[in-house]
Amino acid sequence: MLTLVTGAAGFLGRALVAEFAETRRPGDRLRLLDRVEAEGGDEVLVGDLADPATLDAALDGVDCVIHLAALPGGAAEADYAASRRINLDASLGLIERLANRPAPARLVYASSIAVFGAPLPAFVDDDTSPRPAMTYGGHKLMVETALANLTRLGRIEGVALRLPGLVARPRDGAGLKSAFMSEVFHALAAGQPYVLPIGAEATMWILSVRAAARALIHAATIPAVPPVALTLPALRVTAGALVDEIARQADVDPGLARFAPDPILQAQFGALPPLVTPAADALGFRHDGDLVRLVATTLENRP
Amino acid sequence: MLTLVTGAAGFLGRALVAEFAETRRPGDRLRLLDRVEAEGGDEVLVGDLADPATLDAALDGVDCVIHLAALPGGAAEADYAASRRINLDASLGLIERLANRPAPARLVYASSIAVFGAPLPAFVDDDTSPRPAMTYGGHKLMVETALANLTRLGRIEGVALRLPGLVARPRDGAGLKSAFMSEVFHALAAGQPYVLPIGAEATMWILSVRAAARALIHAATIPAVPPVALTLPALRVTAGALVDEIARQADVDPGLARFAPDPILQAQFGALPPLVTPAADALGFRHDGDLVRLVATTLENRP
Repeated sequence: MLTLVTGAAGFLGRALVAEFAETRRPGDRLRLLDRVEAEGGDEVLVGDLADPATLDAALDGVDCVIHLAALPGGAAEADYAASRRINLDASLGLIERLANRPAPARLVYASSIAVFGAPLPAFVDDDTSPRPAMTYGGHKLMVETALANLTRLGRIEGVALRLPGLVARPRDGAGLKSAFMSEVFHALAAGQPYVLPIGAEATMWILSVRAAARALIHAATIPAVPPVALTLPALRVTAGALVDEIARQADVDPGLARFAPDPILQAQFGALPPLVTPAADALGFRHDGDLVRLVATTLENRP
Repeated sequence: MLTLVTGAAGFLGRALVAEFAETRRPGDRLRLLDRVEAEGGDEVLVGDLADPATLDAALDGVDCVIHLAALPGGAAEADYAASRRINLDASLGLIERLANRPAPARLVYASSIAVFGAPLPAFVDDDTSPRPAMTYGGHKLMVETALANLTRLGRIEGVALRLPGLVARPRDGAGLKSAFMSEVFHALAAGQPYVLPIGAEATMWILSVRAAARALIHAATIPAVPPVALTLPALRVTAGALVDEIARQADVDPGLARFAPDPILQAQFGALPPLVTPAADALGFRHDGDLVRLVATTLENRP
């Protein structure tokens, strides 16, 4: 089986390559595509998904696509036209090109809990109506909708995974409003002070990057096509508990972390209600298990 | 105030022109755009919305746009590429062109209850999650999502109205799977027999075309911008009660109508649950009031 990964040079793409290397079966191959040269994989392509020739070369002979390439939330919010081009048009182009094949191919789409918007209702489940509050989430929802429709028409086998906050992203965090969730890992592991823009009591949904990579590979291989858009399970933790556990495992003073809530960031990323994900659970998707394991996995695989 | 109406030569466009003529205030003007020459209005343009020069001419100096132009559900389902071009791309092009203005303009978008898909939950309210089950509904939802985002960004004042089954459309009904809701009016009014593809107990949400036109004009003029996508109130009636009332007012034998349910059409158009629309109600949107008035209005304005 040949799987194309778009956005393969990004932090999630790199984790996916690492996870794939550990779990691959004989005959499984990865083709990596990004605008810069990705590492690992059996084939590496450099190019822009929006370029038809690149897209043709990338899709040639693939059995499955894991589509990660995206302009992140903060950057999308600052540049609507760029998000339209990268997050919407390029994704629709990829999906429709794949849907023109005689036999439907699997496409795993990295969607986001940003489709839900903010403020969220008192709890979130598989019936919660998405109401995006950022351009990024709006374009993710539009692509989910197109993917669901072409899947219903039998022209593609789409699975969209709504990813929660992933930890730990690399330190640069450019374009990401939720970068603090990762920065606190990097800072405390390095024994440095860090000021979080949310309160200690703020609640977040988080998943290790490695568990997200595992979910994407799982979505590529599960036999049946589920409801197209699946909200992934995530650990719901308070910022205070997260800081304490990172400090414990990194053997540093938890007092290195301070909390200075920014009302906008607190509302957007620090007020996440209870989450239940029965559709994804039934299909075998899992979060990290508990906070101890999430922090251990994250510190171990920290980019 | 200059209002552009797209798709103005269609049955809903014609009803809108008629309603506008009765309610216009001094200074109110209508510019009509369609691929064929529309009737009425203060200015009439013929052209394709997807053509940039046509779009520029159509938008020049307008204060408000009522966007009706669409490929109907059955035709969209039969031709994905055409729906992508007409229902998605042309609508996004129009919205984004308008959003590039220095001051946000009002855009009223004729969306559809097709965004909800089928089967529907036990009741539908403003929190019901849309899950389109046709290409038409999928593209309507994608445009709603884009409109909501650009409205949130303050670049446009979007109001999307989710229209229920409209009666009575003209007799040709090309491309419309729900044409039977209108055909039964035309047939009984002409004293002709008609076979409905749903059962007498089937439940529908219906609105007269005239009430829909009134809602679109209302959406163009209400001062505040509400939640962008509003499900319009509709009368929920059984097919049997509708037939009886049409026959009574047309003074014909209700036995002219027979029921031969088609399972697919019954599931899609004849199993509509109770509907509550508090957001639209609070903004002053109204359905026809009762079945007697809906039938009277429809027979009187039948195209």
